Amino acid sequence: MNTTRLADIVAALGGELHGNPETTVERIAPLDGADERSIAFLSHSRHAAKLAQCRAACVIVAPALQEQARARGATLVHPDPYLYYARLTRWWVQRHEPMPSPGVHASAVVDASAQLDPTAHVGALAVVGAGARIGPHAVIGAQAHVGREARVGERTRLAPHVMLGDRCTIGARCIVQAGAVIGADGFGFAPFEGRWEKIEQLGAVVIGDDVEIGANTCIDRGALGDTVVEDGVKLDNLIQIAHNVHIGAHTAMAAKVGIAGSTRIGRHVTIGGASGLVGHIEIADHVHIDAATVVTRSIAKPGRYSGPFPFDDNASWEKNAATVRQLYALRERLRALEKKS
Amino acid sequence: MNTTRLADIVAALGGELHGNPETTVERIAPLDGADERSIAFLSHSRHAAKLAQCRAACVIVAPALQEQARARGATLVHPDPYLYYARLTRWWVQRHEPMPSPGVHASAVVDASAQLDPTAHVGALAVVGAGARIGPHAVIGAQAHVGREARVGERTRLAPHVMLGDRCTIGARCIVQAGAVIGADGFGFAPFEGRWEKIEQLGAVVIGDDVEIGANTCIDRGALGDTVVEDGVKLDNLIQIAHNVHIGAHTAMAAKVGIAGSTRIGRHVTIGGASGLVGHIEIADHVHIDAATVVTRSIAKPGRYSGPFPFDDNASWEKNAATVRQLYALRERLRALEKKS
Amino acid sequence: MNTTRLADIVAALGGELHGNPETTVERIAPLDGADERSIAFLSHSRHAAKLAQCRAACVIVAPALQEQARARGATLVHPDPYLYYARLTRWWVQRHEPMPSPGVHASAVVDASAQLDPTAHVGALAVVGAGARIGPHAVIGAQAHVGREARVGERTRLAPHVMLGDRCTIGARCIVQAGAVIGADGFGFAPFEGRWEKIEQLGAVVIGDDVEIGANTCIDRGALGDTVVEDGVKLDNLIQIAHNVHIGAHTAMAAKVGIAGSTRIGRHVTIGGASGLVGHIEIADHVHIDAATVVTRSIAKPGRYSGPFPFDDNASWEKNAATVRQLYALRERLRALEKKS
Repeated sequence: MNTTRLADIVAALGGELHGNPETTVERIAPLDGADERSIAFLSHSRHAAKLAQCRAACVIVAPALQEQARARGATLVHPDPYLYYARLTRWWVQRHEPMPSPGVHASAVVDASAQLDPTAHVGALAVVGAGARIGPHAVIGAQAHVGREARVGERTRLAPHVMLGDRCTIGARCIVQAGAVIGADGFGFAPFEGRWEKIEQLGAVVIGDDVEIGANTCIDRGALGDTVVEDGVKLDNLIQIAHNVHIGAHTAMAAKVGIAGSTRIGRHVTIGGASGLVGHIEIADHVHIDAATVVTRSIAKPGRYSGPFPFDDNASWEKNAATVRQLYALRERLRALEKKS
Repeated sequence: MNTTRLADIVAALGGELHGNPETTVERIAPLDGADERSIAFLSHSRHAAKLAQCRAACVIVAPALQEQARARGATLVHPDPYLYYARLTRWWVQRHEPMPSPGVHASAVVDASAQLDPTAHVGALAVVGAGARIGPHAVIGAQAHVGREARVGERTRLAPHVMLGDRCTIGARCIVQAGAVIGADGFGFAPFEGRWEKIEQLGAVVIGDDVEIGANTCIDRGALGDTVVEDGVKLDNLIQIAHNVHIGAHTAMAAKVGIAGSTRIGRHVTIGGASGLVGHIEIADHVHIDAATVVTRSIAKPGRYSGPFPFDDNASWEKNAATVRQLYALRERLRALEKKS
Repeated sequence: MNTTRLADIVAALGGELHGNPETTVERIAPLDGADERSIAFLSHSRHAAKLAQCRAACVIVAPALQEQARARGATLVHPDPYLYYARLTRWWVQRHEPMPSPGVHASAVVDASAQLDPTAHVGALAVVGAGARIGPHAVIGAQAHVGREARVGERTRLAPHVMLGDRCTIGARCIVQAGAVIGADGFGFAPFEGRWEKIEQLGAVVIGDDVEIGANTCIDRGALGDTVVEDGVKLDNLIQIAHNVHIGAHTAMAAKVGIAGSTRIGRHVTIGGASGLVGHIEIADHVHIDAATVVTRSIAKPGRYSGPFPFDDNASWEKNAATVRQLYALRERLRALEKKS
């Protein structure tokens, strides 16, 4: 049982508690799934109407809603309840989840020349290559792979089945989800007489601190220079980052995004799911690209950009999509009419 | 040699055989690749013209085509030849393919607290975490990973390199293809001063019975509640299912689909390859979404929905795509003309 | 230190050296990142302006630029500098990178009935199934999986975590990047009373020589016949190749492409990133499909084909995308006006 006193939460994370600090909760719950043993949070004032029925032992709210919240029971007031919730989840996990113990599992295969901090954990059947370095409190998941001369920073965690390629480096406090492949060869070939001759990819991948990389996401090594992911970048699942891409700090991408080779993305950019960027372009800081957008040229100006073709019921789509093929001709016909009139 | 008598097939799977039951076949083949040692099937009457030349030892046909089929040789009549073919492949595999033997491979790493049914198979170099439970006749493939307190139901098969995360559960008779990741963290962060603060994902993934999950497909664990995949769902390869998605029973998705967080999909839905659904929407039962469609709002009505921009030869596409950027302006010009006329 | 004399490079790879053959270089660099210890190359004459400032010890150029290049220092002249660069990278890796030594790592699990050439390398914690055959100088990466009766040709390299399924075959000199899954089941089900009945996938995957397959790419086994990838094909990361697809020789596909079942693709085709091809169509030789194109019918004529909806700033996109939904109606209104005028 993860029984936790409200007093301990406030002591650790701050906020103003109205209610009995000895009250205990056993889980964090969404507002409408909470019961008497839950602590819940209200992230948007538009959900305020749900407060009255909420059965949670305590609700985290913004100051503007504290009157309303206190009318129903224990209330924790904080300027940013969603942020508070994020921090509560992290504190909760540290308190209640078992942490991997330091040391190397007997079944792991660690090269004698690898340098492991004694506080690091290497899981069952993991491989750590020659000359690799693993920092303090780092966690190498079961069956994960750390290549030759790769480096893993302090407190970084690789999930099971992660592959960190030879000579690639990842900074501190990163999280890499299962199946991610960091440092596969970039896709480079020289055409010759109708065939493709491989260009060996001699660069590596360099990842900063506080980066998260999603499940089965791929970040290719650079051709000559490196592929670079700066601090604080968050990548969701099944993303493709091609060779020599450069991703600025604190940029976030949703699942299934693809970035083609040598493209440079600024800082604090967000890219919606399944969007794609062609190669060799530049995206300015603070650009926000909606889901399913195909970005075919550089974007120099911060702002929001969009791209998907609108979906419709099939009959309407069939007619409109067929008309798209005549669009230029329609424009010419309209011009002709305008000239006449 | 997988020699099989027609009599044995009919005894196992039914249907009406016209021809010598002692005839033997060695393989199942498509109509136009069949030879004298094959059993073939005719799924659509539009392929009936191929019957005459078909050299198969026996052909499975619907009643309407039995006259035509019997004219060429042995015929197995069944109301649904495609269904018969599906069942024949399953019976064939059970009869001819080696099944993994019960027991744990010596190289697997199984926590002492895991509960394995004695009839389950755990392959070479697999990992089974603390408190995990593996049901009767389940197969954990070589190098697969079953997390702490995860559960695998009866006769479910995880292929090599599958990762089933901590506390995730999968029901009976499921098939998970290689490289699938079930239970990576959902993509959740709270923005704070231009950075992203991680929200620990405290939920799990709950998968029903008779589900198939494709290679390198990802199903993320829920943030607070669970991500749910109901009975009979079929997911192809490289699909992304984000946290707290709910997929209704018997829904099927082709490869490369992406479903963003908290979206609810009904029962008996089909989604074509590479389509994407934004988060927090609802899709009714019996909705059919064509390939490459971007669904940006809820769909309340059963029916067929479509979305891709039509492709064309590059020259035509260039002209039409450029005109798309002027589409709203064209509409305004048309309005102006209409007013005048 | 990877110190290399220019004389050795020319002796191995040809070209005409103008400069001191005893000059040594330590790395290959892009033109604008090169220092005095680098050899660089000039692939396009449009970059010729960068020559003057380039500090490289030696630059590889085409004959047309040799005057200009020799004015700045040592020059290696070759008709195709990009091809020369490709070959230089391969020679460089062979010379400077450690090659895996022949033999089977003690932690690998190799079935007694597998046939391994004594020059092959099987890495730590790899699995090689019953009856598999591994050719001369082949490399099975750490934690990779070679299924039952699978075959790996001479000098082919599987990266860590690759999965090559039962009975699948891959030719000589191929490279398979980490996490690729070759031979998962194709996605085949027969509908029956609102449920899906599995069709066992009895075919395999047959891959030719000199093929490269990207990280986390999936190639499914055929339903009855095989899925076929001919010689010299290059597939980038996160690609989906469905069952019974046939890919002609020397075709290349960028990341995130998806090819649905039974589609036949010709030789020397290129497909841009994130494009998708529906099933059961045919693409002629020498077709070039741009990125993000959804190909919904066969293409019989060589040429370039395109498809993405143009992206725009969000406000413009909103107006144009909304107008797309009225496109057919607009056409009808235009027709009406034309009749009147």
